[in-house]
Amino acid sequence: MTDDQETGLTLNPKFDASGLLTAVITDEADGTLLMVGHMNAEALARSVETRTAVFYSRSRQKLWQKGESSGNVLHIVDIRIDCDQDAIWIIARPDGPTCHTGARSCFYRRVTETGLEPA
Amino acid sequence: MTDDQETGLTLNPKFDASGLLTAVITDEADGTLLMVGHMNAEALARSVETRTAVFYSRSRQKLWQKGESSGNVLHIVDIRIDCDQDAIWIIARPDGPTCHTGARSCFYRRVTETGLEPA
Repeated sequence: MTDDQETGLTLNPKFDASGLLTAVITDEADGTLLMVGHMNAEALARSVETRTAVFYSRSRQKLWQKGESSGNVLHIVDIRIDCDQDAIWIIARPDGPTCHTGARSCFYRRVTETGLEPA
Repeated sequence: MTDDQETGLTLNPKFDASGLLTAVITDEADGTLLMVGHMNAEALARSVETRTAVFYSRSRQKLWQKGESSGNVLHIVDIRIDCDQDAIWIIARPDGPTCHTGARSCFYRRVTETGLEPA
């Protein structure tokens, strides 16, 4: 990490060995964490340009626009980057449930000392 | 990903090749994304047990309790896990600024079409 990466106003992402950043999506309405995904340089550029969330699928090894099949697009309200430029925060307005299970958020279970429970 | 991992109530994290999960920390007060870190199995167990956020530092290759040097501990209000159990969401009450730069959040810059700007 360079000082400029941390304090400067130049976009200079620190991609991991696979060329990816972590992308965290929260709901503008109430800050609920909707999902965590990954973006390569092109997914980030297309997200910035289209103001809709575009990710890189590690399993399918290709770009995908969230909602391209479900219709549940994530409209981008704000995009932030963290101190060492390896994580992106997108504040979004979702068109519908974000999780492929149909849940509003992928984080529908609570971790307790004895296991998981519905949140 | 197995069906049980997605729908069951058994904690069965899908660690990456380095044995890590992505951990997203938001502020209980208003949903602000404070930081993104990583947890191995022990960091997760200690976070659940102590109700304070414990991470695994990839650069230092050891566990660290957030705030161990700065005093800015993250007190855990809720812990969630996502559908495929490879990401953790911690809703926390921070004792002070979370970013090592002194900023409240690590996400203090906005990404625009022309670069970054203070958020």
